[in-house]
Amino acid sequence: MNYQVIRYMLGYICYFEAAFLTLPCFVGLIYGEYRVSMIYALVAAICVLLGAAFRFKRPKDKRMYTKEGLVTVALCWIVLSILGALPFCISGEIPYYVDALFETISGFTTTGSSILSDVEALSHASLFWRSFTHWVGGMGVLVFILAILPAQGGAFMNLMKAESPGPSVSKLVPRLRDTALFLYGIYMGMTLLELALLLIGKMPVFDAVTLTFGTAGTGGFAVRNSGLADYSVYQQAVITVFMIAFGVNFNSYFLLLRKRFKQAVKSEEVLTYLGIIAVSVLLITVNVRPLFPNLFQAFHHTFFQVGSIITTTGYSTQDFNLWPPLSRTILMVLVFIGACAGSTGGGIKVSRLIIMVKGIRKEIRTLLHPRSVYKVRMDGRAIEHEVVRSVNVYLAIYVLIFVGSLLIITLDEKDLVTNFTAVGVTLNNIGPGLGVVGPTGNFSSFSAVSKLVLCLDMLAGRLELFPILMLFVPSVWKRGKREKVRIEKTKAEKAKV
Amino acid sequence: MNYQVIRYMLGYICYFEAAFLTLPCFVGLIYGEYRVSMIYALVAAICVLLGAAFRFKRPKDKRMYTKEGLVTVALCWIVLSILGALPFCISGEIPYYVDALFETISGFTTTGSSILSDVEALSHASLFWRSFTHWVGGMGVLVFILAILPAQGGAFMNLMKAESPGPSVSKLVPRLRDTALFLYGIYMGMTLLELALLLIGKMPVFDAVTLTFGTAGTGGFAVRNSGLADYSVYQQAVITVFMIAFGVNFNSYFLLLRKRFKQAVKSEEVLTYLGIIAVSVLLITVNVRPLFPNLFQAFHHTFFQVGSIITTTGYSTQDFNLWPPLSRTILMVLVFIGACAGSTGGGIKVSRLIIMVKGIRKEIRTLLHPRSVYKVRMDGRAIEHEVVRSVNVYLAIYVLIFVGSLLIITLDEKDLVTNFTAVGVTLNNIGPGLGVVGPTGNFSSFSAVSKLVLCLDMLAGRLELFPILMLFVPSVWKRGKREKVRIEKTKAEKAKV
Repeated sequence: MNYQVIRYMLGYICYFEAAFLTLPCFVGLIYGEYRVSMIYALVAAICVLLGAAFRFKRPKDKRMYTKEGLVTVALCWIVLSILGALPFCISGEIPYYVDALFETISGFTTTGSSILSDVEALSHASLFWRSFTHWVGGMGVLVFILAILPAQGGAFMNLMKAESPGPSVSKLVPRLRDTALFLYGIYMGMTLLELALLLIGKMPVFDAVTLTFGTAGTGGFAVRNSGLADYSVYQQAVITVFMIAFGVNFNSYFLLLRKRFKQAVKSEEVLTYLGIIAVSVLLITVNVRPLFPNLFQAFHHTFFQVGSIITTTGYSTQDFNLWPPLSRTILMVLVFIGACAGSTGGGIKVSRLIIMVKGIRKEIRTLLHPRSVYKVRMDGRAIEHEVVRSVNVYLAIYVLIFVGSLLIITLDEKDLVTNFTAVGVTLNNIGPGLGVVGPTGNFSSFSAVSKLVLCLDMLAGRLELFPILMLFVPSVWKRGKREKVRIEKTKAEKAKV
Repeated sequence: MNYQVIRYMLGYICYFEAAFLTLPCFVGLIYGEYRVSMIYALVAAICVLLGAAFRFKRPKDKRMYTKEGLVTVALCWIVLSILGALPFCISGEIPYYVDALFETISGFTTTGSSILSDVEALSHASLFWRSFTHWVGGMGVLVFILAILPAQGGAFMNLMKAESPGPSVSKLVPRLRDTALFLYGIYMGMTLLELALLLIGKMPVFDAVTLTFGTAGTGGFAVRNSGLADYSVYQQAVITVFMIAFGVNFNSYFLLLRKRFKQAVKSEEVLTYLGIIAVSVLLITVNVRPLFPNLFQAFHHTFFQVGSIITTTGYSTQDFNLWPPLSRTILMVLVFIGACAGSTGGGIKVSRLIIMVKGIRKEIRTLLHPRSVYKVRMDGRAIEHEVVRSVNVYLAIYVLIFVGSLLIITLDEKDLVTNFTAVGVTLNNIGPGLGVVGPTGNFSSFSAVSKLVLCLDMLAGRLELFPILMLFVPSVWKRGKREKVRIEKTKAEKAKV
């Protein structure tokens, strides 16, 4: 394990966190919240100092293998959250640090689960920071760094692989840095477009900015206690469309920009994703029709809710806890499916689902015709055996993490539906669940231990299990043979001098 | 698809069903239930006629490949259940045929879920039949046939593969028929031993016989409305020990009989299985201690319940619906784990769990050391790549069937816990779930459609998914190229004559 390079990357993260924190500081100044503003400035200063400490000694060995890539990503996200939670706690807006940490991790992982019962009591600076973490977490912090820093060679592919959602990363353009730039460009463009449309619809500027952050990152933190129920139909509709748009694989947008329309439209994953949305909207609309005065309203709220859940955003215009069992069960299934790979959404991902189903088809064919050779294909291309295996293993790990978390939080003696959906929505980065943690409830009544478990679930879900899992594998922390040899060599050389 | 050989096997099944049905007929005569007795005799006669019709024409082509093996097993179990449900319905004891079918499938698949609220209203003949189906289904009908019929060559390996629980079948002895005989020998011996111990403990003969059938097949139908709550502590303890014993991989017993003690004791699967039981008993005992007057009682009922659930028997001495959330969640997890492969228990199976976890370890190692080659091992032997893949695919199919069933039965507008556990306990062949279908409830309030879905789940669970899945694969029902050639040849020959 190359600890030096990890430490060095953590330094970068601290600097970036400091830069991020200046934004809520300014927002606070605009709204006259000087005390809170100062706290954000103070924490930014702490971040700079810490970053300088981390980067004091340059690493001799800059090599970063898969192992280092995974651990770096996990630790960066954890450090980011630990520091990002400080302003909430110091300002006294969220007095307990575990709660502040839960809220911050929920922000960066674009989950949107909250421990707050009264959101409106927060200062504008803190509300802004909460929503801004969604935007930062949505596309990935390290991807952001890659886009801005001078390209640092192929080693950083391992970082991007670990942070990007989906079973495989495809470099859109030969240079990795250009890929990162492209992705952030599309992300930024769509964010501005949504903001403009919301402002045209006469949404107050502060709401428009924060909700756009939440939509873009598929996060789900709202700035009003009523969630998104009080906004106009036009505003809700704009958010619906953009939630779904941010759940589409960004590769498709890239292809559209390159005018490869045919290829963009034919993406199996995107078509399946849109198909699932269409079927779910149809079924739920019929099912909840009696709860609404007319068909349009039923359709409007269903469309919003389906878009919100499948993209793992978690905004709500309605307390779907009160919807009939069929609708709630469909929503629960959508929780696990999630959005497209390569989008800002979470969950298991539509492409994994497709590969899984095709893997089953392959298994059945192999059973029937033991001598035939059959390859799993997607978008016309054969998928490597390793990817199929990795998807299956992913599902297995997913189930084990789910069951483990469920058993621990069950100690809090809440009802089974609450526990089940609490783990489900955090591991899939959704936001609200059913029961106590439904759209009108929150996570504050869980014990500190449960909250920390759910924090790990949120991080595991956002980083696609492996990086967080790595932290618990003892052999990761040991030095490999080669490293030992290298270290001994250095010592020997020093001794000579 | 070789339809002839399937038809021929179905004929066998009808004959055997007739033989099975004579037993409740005799039981009815003993208890003076002449009307019911006559009905069982009548249905037995129908079975003989049907069997003769199926076997009227001998198959020209006796070849049976995997495809035919899987479909034969699925159809045999369905025919067995369709005919076995007739006496309940004709006698009017279970007036609706769908209910009778549910009860019979629940019997043969050793599930033990019931639609009856008043078990004691049934005649002795029907109570005996209900429990006897557990015993028949426990070890497998086709294994039984293989043990009795003259050996019919390697083709029948495919039948046994399809019917035996677990990721892979190991022939214990070179000849398949001898393996089947051995298994049934052990099964019969353990059944008689349990019966003897219960009779020594002064259990009434009828109760002892039926409960032994239920334990041996890990079924779970009781003969009293109070379940197993009213029996003595000794009797409950005997049943606990035998439930757990019938959940052990029968290979271990075979090794013991062959005096290969070391090998028998070292089985990874059995040790893990016993370990899971020990840990669960410990945790739940501590958790439910306040509900009982003393520690022994808490331990006794916990031990019984854990044994009953993990072996997928489903007997109950207590309404565990009222236990605290942690205990209920642990039991819910045990529902899915299930017993050992090669036992009479259901569920996902401990060996699959072990292979799954080892597959995850392999994946992590491969991620960390991309160039190293690592094999999944069990009991010291390397497990073939195909088995690991098949286990992962099994889990994927399992999840899809689970979700599909859940969505359909949700239309009945029951609460989420009831729906979730109803699918869970039928797919894993347990018996009682939580909520409406808890130990004191039953499945009668579900709609006919839901009951049929749950019937398919029970069959899919008992036959390990693939045979039932095959019935829904269109290409299975088409004739292959070779068959077409063969049929045309036969026609041409006929034309010549």
